[in-house]
Amino acid sequence: MAPRDALEFPASDRVFLEPHLPPLDSSATPATPSTTTPFTTLTFATSLDSALALSPGTRTVLSGAQSKAMTHYLRSRHDGILIGVGTAVADDPGLNCRILGVSGYESELESESQSLSQELHGQPRPVVIDPNARWGFSEESKLFQLCREGKGRAPWIVVTQATAQSIPFDKTRLLERYGGRFITVSSSSSDSLDWRAILETLKMNGLSSVMIEGGGQVINSLLEPPNLGLIDSVIVTIAPTWLGRGGVVVSPARRVDEGGNAIPAARLRDVVWYPLGEDVVLCGRIGGVHCRG
Amino acid sequence: MAPRDALEFPASDRVFLEPHLPPLDSSATPATPSTTTPFTTLTFATSLDSALALSPGTRTVLSGAQSKAMTHYLRSRHDGILIGVGTAVADDPGLNCRILGVSGYESELESESQSLSQELHGQPRPVVIDPNARWGFSEESKLFQLCREGKGRAPWIVVTQATAQSIPFDKTRLLERYGGRFITVSSSSSDSLDWRAILETLKMNGLSSVMIEGGGQVINSLLEPPNLGLIDSVIVTIAPTWLGRGGVVVSPARRVDEGGNAIPAARLRDVVWYPLGEDVVLCGRIGGVHCRG
Ligand SMILES: NC(=O)c1ccc[n+]([C@@H]2O[C@H](COP(=O)([O-])OP(=O)(O)OC[C@H]3O[C@@H](n4cnc5c(N)ncnc54)[C@H](OP(=O)(O)O)[C@@H]3O)[C@@H](O)[C@H]2O)c1
Ligand SMILES: NC(=O)c1ccc[n+]([C@@H]2O[C@H](COP(=O)([O-])OP(=O)(O)OC[C@H]3O[C@@H](n4cnc5c(N)ncnc54)[C@H](OP(=O)(O)O)[C@@H]3O)[C@@H](O)[C@H]2O)c1
Repeated sequence: MAPRDALEFPASDRVFLEPHLPPLDSSATPATPSTTTPFTTLTFATSLDSALALSPGTRTVLSGAQSKAMTHYLRSRHDGILIGVGTAVADDPGLNCRILGVSGYESELESESQSLSQELHGQPRPVVIDPNARWGFSEESKLFQLCREGKGRAPWIVVTQATAQSIPFDKTRLLERYGGRFITVSSSSSDSLDWRAILETLKMNGLSSVMIEGGGQVINSLLEPPNLGLIDSVIVTIAPTWLGRGGVVVSPARRVDEGGNAIPAARLRDVVWYPLGEDVVLCGRIGGVHCRG
Repeated sequence: MAPRDALEFPASDRVFLEPHLPPLDSSATPATPSTTTPFTTLTFATSLDSALALSPGTRTVLSGAQSKAMTHYLRSRHDGILIGVGTAVADDPGLNCRILGVSGYESELESESQSLSQELHGQPRPVVIDPNARWGFSEESKLFQLCREGKGRAPWIVVTQATAQSIPFDKTRLLERYGGRFITVSSSSSDSLDWRAILETLKMNGLSSVMIEGGGQVINSLLEPPNLGLIDSVIVTIAPTWLGRGGVVVSPARRVDEGGNAIPAARLRDVVWYPLGEDVVLCGRIGGVHCRG
């Protein structure tokens, strides 16, 4: 019997996603063989007014059961899931994958055979961007609970080189005991980290595909011209709700042309819209606008 | 031959809209026979970041050719199209219907027979909410050009009773020469007009259905609890673009529950998502939340 909280995402619904996902067979010759960054998917759920949450620091359930199952399926298809520290602090997220069949969510039969083969198969690596190591995780954090239950991996926490010097020893020890670690990224600025450098570091550490889930600051900074070229795929779920003003909103910084006139910040191409329950899923690739940025 | 700027919206695409439109046969017994307000459809096009335009006072082309044709089909199905004065000033809009077959856009054959029967058939009545009569229209305004060409009706301009006293005579004369007029609505406040009173006035003046197109202030005020009950249908087109911060945004005022916690401002029910070209069309009805407002 499958664990009660395992999720199923039917094969028929997987078809439209496939062209927007990292190649299933990672040993296959990739189209662009020598990229230094992972296959990067930007994915999140918003309201009609482009909000991720009702207010900063709160978790808002936006999407329906089917979209939720899709998110977990997407997680099973990526080596890593990345969030900003704002989300880690606000949501105490699990960041694991609950699709039926992955480690911790097998049917009984699978469970026996799998435990002998690959450990934590199908469970992505959580990555938290936390330049100043301000996330106050503890044994009680959801992520570590799931580690103890064999249902998820411990996180990698990306900090600046300056921060790395002063992290309290027990924090590092707790993290490493579960198999996680602090990772530094060499960065030009002392405070903000360069997205290319972050992604290159993750690739060097073995992640061939990364799913970036939020929150607002992370997504908005990736939707700006210097970073648009780093994104291979965009998958947005939209729920038929207006959250109202004051929420955590996805909307990149304004762009202007040479004459100083506002122009659209980013457009998707190869667009597919797929209704899923009451929500719609939008898949696309970043269009050519970033070239002009 | 049809005029070059006539638009076609195929019958196959009309099917999904039908349950979200005013009844085709207006003589049919309506479900709620004695309503004092018209069948009211809220319809507009946004970017992924819920913007109607790149900045206040500019017109932004958001939706593709098919969505544009849909908007004109929707116009053919309503007696009136309503906008706020902000949109009138920013866009100099035509507010007519260019679907093949309506007055001014007939094929040659239709043209001969129709001109003998009904004048301006299929052309909705433009309604501009302009409490202070600040719209500086002239003979050159797009709306009046279309009137001269037999391709649209002159607008009704809704003003406060106080404003009505001081409108210059030539303004009234110009408007009335084309068949338009100023309309007053009795309102509790001197400046803002009550939406129920506006809609009741329009119904009393013969409009059984009204399509509300924008802009931001108009839509946001209608998405607030006191007015949500006035809306019969919502049809939103979403284009796969982020316009970026600083645009004219659809996002209603924040709502809070009795404990002071933020809650979603409005949710749609009976939702249909319909991909149309690169865009998606969302149809729905306002959910039960307004009862709690
Ligand atoms: N609906 C959804 O799909 C979804 C998904 C995820 C999150 N959320 C919601 O989003 C909200 C959190 O969003 P948020 O905008 O507050 O936080 P966030 O984007 O999760 O995290 C922002 C923080 O991450 C760090 N950071 C991000 N990018 C960085 C970079 N390139 N270099 C250095 N530091 C970087 C910064 O930390 P410092 O401040 O320490 O510099 C920044 O303040 C929560 O309410 C959560 O529930 C919703
Ligand atoms: N993408 C689309 O589908 C779409 C559709 C329409 C418009 N737009 C865009 O929207 C922008 C204009 O939006 P906007 O928010 O600036 O203007 P708006 O909503 O068109 O008009 C706002 C004005 O209308 C008057 N008004 C509205 N409701 C009223 C009420 N209940 N009582 C009294 N007065 C009321 C007020 O006039 P006073 O200030 O005189 O009080 C108010 O300032 C333009 O850029 C236009 O291109 C886009």
